[in-house]
Amino acid sequence: MPSFFRRNVEAMEGYVPGEQPRDADSVVKLNTNENPYPPSRAVGEALSSFDASMLRLYPDPMCRAFREAAAEAHGVSPENIIVGNGSDDILTIATRSFVPEGGLIAKVSPSYTLYRTLAEIQGAACLDIPLEEDFSLPFDAAESAEGASLFFLPRPNAPTGTAFAKDAVRGLCERFDGVVLIDEAYAAFADDDCLDLPFEYPNAIVSRTLSKSHSLAGARLGYAIATEEMVAGMMKVKDSYNVNALTQALATAAIKDGAWLEENVRNIRGNRAALSAALSGMGFDVVESAANFVLASPPDGGAKALYERLKSDGIFVRWFDEDRVRRFVRITVGTEKEIESLLSALRRVYG
Amino acid sequence: MPSFFRRNVEAMEGYVPGEQPRDADSVVKLNTNENPYPPSRAVGEALSSFDASMLRLYPDPMCRAFREAAAEAHGVSPENIIVGNGSDDILTIATRSFVPEGGLIAKVSPSYTLYRTLAEIQGAACLDIPLEEDFSLPFDAAESAEGASLFFLPRPNAPTGTAFAKDAVRGLCERFDGVVLIDEAYAAFADDDCLDLPFEYPNAIVSRTLSKSHSLAGARLGYAIATEEMVAGMMKVKDSYNVNALTQALATAAIKDGAWLEENVRNIRGNRAALSAALSGMGFDVVESAANFVLASPPDGGAKALYERLKSDGIFVRWFDEDRVRRFVRITVGTEKEIESLLSALRRVYG
Repeated sequence: MPSFFRRNVEAMEGYVPGEQPRDADSVVKLNTNENPYPPSRAVGEALSSFDASMLRLYPDPMCRAFREAAAEAHGVSPENIIVGNGSDDILTIATRSFVPEGGLIAKVSPSYTLYRTLAEIQGAACLDIPLEEDFSLPFDAAESAEGASLFFLPRPNAPTGTAFAKDAVRGLCERFDGVVLIDEAYAAFADDDCLDLPFEYPNAIVSRTLSKSHSLAGARLGYAIATEEMVAGMMKVKDSYNVNALTQALATAAIKDGAWLEENVRNIRGNRAALSAALSGMGFDVVESAANFVLASPPDGGAKALYERLKSDGIFVRWFDEDRVRRFVRITVGTEKEIESLLSALRRVYG
Repeated sequence: MPSFFRRNVEAMEGYVPGEQPRDADSVVKLNTNENPYPPSRAVGEALSSFDASMLRLYPDPMCRAFREAAAEAHGVSPENIIVGNGSDDILTIATRSFVPEGGLIAKVSPSYTLYRTLAEIQGAACLDIPLEEDFSLPFDAAESAEGASLFFLPRPNAPTGTAFAKDAVRGLCERFDGVVLIDEAYAAFADDDCLDLPFEYPNAIVSRTLSKSHSLAGARLGYAIATEEMVAGMMKVKDSYNVNALTQALATAAIKDGAWLEENVRNIRGNRAALSAALSGMGFDVVESAANFVLASPPDGGAKALYERLKSDGIFVRWFDEDRVRRFVRITVGTEKEIESLLSALRRVYG
């Protein structure tokens, strides 16, 4: 039987998301960078006051209420914001907006593997630009990426957790001919962000998600901040009703609660410091993190064995079978109690 | 400033969804084919029992619970089902799976205008195959579509409301070389459906949505039924976490409530018959509908004027500035009360 699929789709493997164990309650889940704390109380209130009968109507295709709230939170205009069904949707919209079939996407390496999958789905090539030894951005990244239409740059980067120097990001925006999509999925936990860059460089787009920063991975809401022209063009590419009505209501409540965000980030950063220090104390090689996870290499270098050992203890972390990070495990910053469970298990192994 | 957008995106207009008035309570909204009745009580119960703290976790990327429930409802296997963020997402996934840039999509005309938008976003051409005078499928549709990779066939069709003869659909699947996507957004209101065709013709895919049939347009859940091979391939193209956790819970509850669906469909079909009869009685030319809307041409042919007149009365119907349907308005089948409001307004115009 002939395949009906495009050749690029036929050939690709498909993205493999981190494991989602069915019985999430009985495991310590530190593998997919979820926020360990429940979302703002305002989210629960928006949920319980939502009238189920309204679900019969289509949601607002323009996500006006959320865009107004997000614009207020970031000091930009609603016209600078496009909303997606998670930031995966934003990344897909950007790919379809800027990259033709047969085109080229640039990404750094090691980085988020989904970027390559997005290129494969689009039928585009994907160029890996190796990071420096210390996971910093090479000074000639723009030149290396010549010919690409789109450069995916996560800041903080995953799975390294490092934040590229902002001047290096500026240099990339300045010198790269295509669009630079700065993926700020983890920026809430970093010392600074790049939300000002789209207003300095018209080829810069910053994407955000409420998944990690607002404990709303299950609700699926991401957004991008860019010039009005960029937003207007990407609006043509998105599915009309791409964000459901419940998520719009919950996300709007969440982003308005700035006090919750501040406290949550303080807690995560505190736990991150404690986790990093404890790991270093056990002889782990710990990469300094600006995100809500820590990349750490065990003293014996046996990261895969450690990942498996922890999994059999009911503790899920992530291990990537990939050059440069094979000797590390990536550990999401959990609650104090989850970190204690992890450290106990590690003490049993490393004494 | 140079455009960063692909040429096809730059050139396109973007899909224009039906108006969503902000104050939906004060208008009679018969313009976007929403179900006028609230969803099943089971949906409200699933909503009020949903624990907001669980939103911090990613949703099930495979939508297992929903697929099991839908498989049960349709007598197929969960492996025959792929779930989307509304059926728009399913249509996008199919486009990206089967149609290369520079490729060709076939659709009938008049039909759902989104199909052309999907072609434009993909950078593909779109071939319109004119329906017969009575809006039936031309017997040589497969031959006319030669060279296309994908044929979008809504059954019942929108905006006509007509259901193509099932034998004609079989003939198309049999003789067309590419994929036939039978869009069954409105099939719950018809006398029969095409859910058996993917198991007879491996190039046939049937898409469904809970938007109209289950009063869940605001929740965004669509799905496709196809062979296991088709589903596995399309899974690679979808965003991993494309359906949020709340929608998965609500939709699973909804599709399990077969009794609700049966009663709702009975009501809509009853209201449709009453609306059609009343319009005919006033001299409208009414197309026989198998959907939850009615295409009807006013006695004076002044459909645009009627649309505007009704809008100023707070009654929203849809008018398409498009050949073959310009003399019609499309009226969603509302509640008995909404239909009475519409008919009163029409009586004031047509006596």
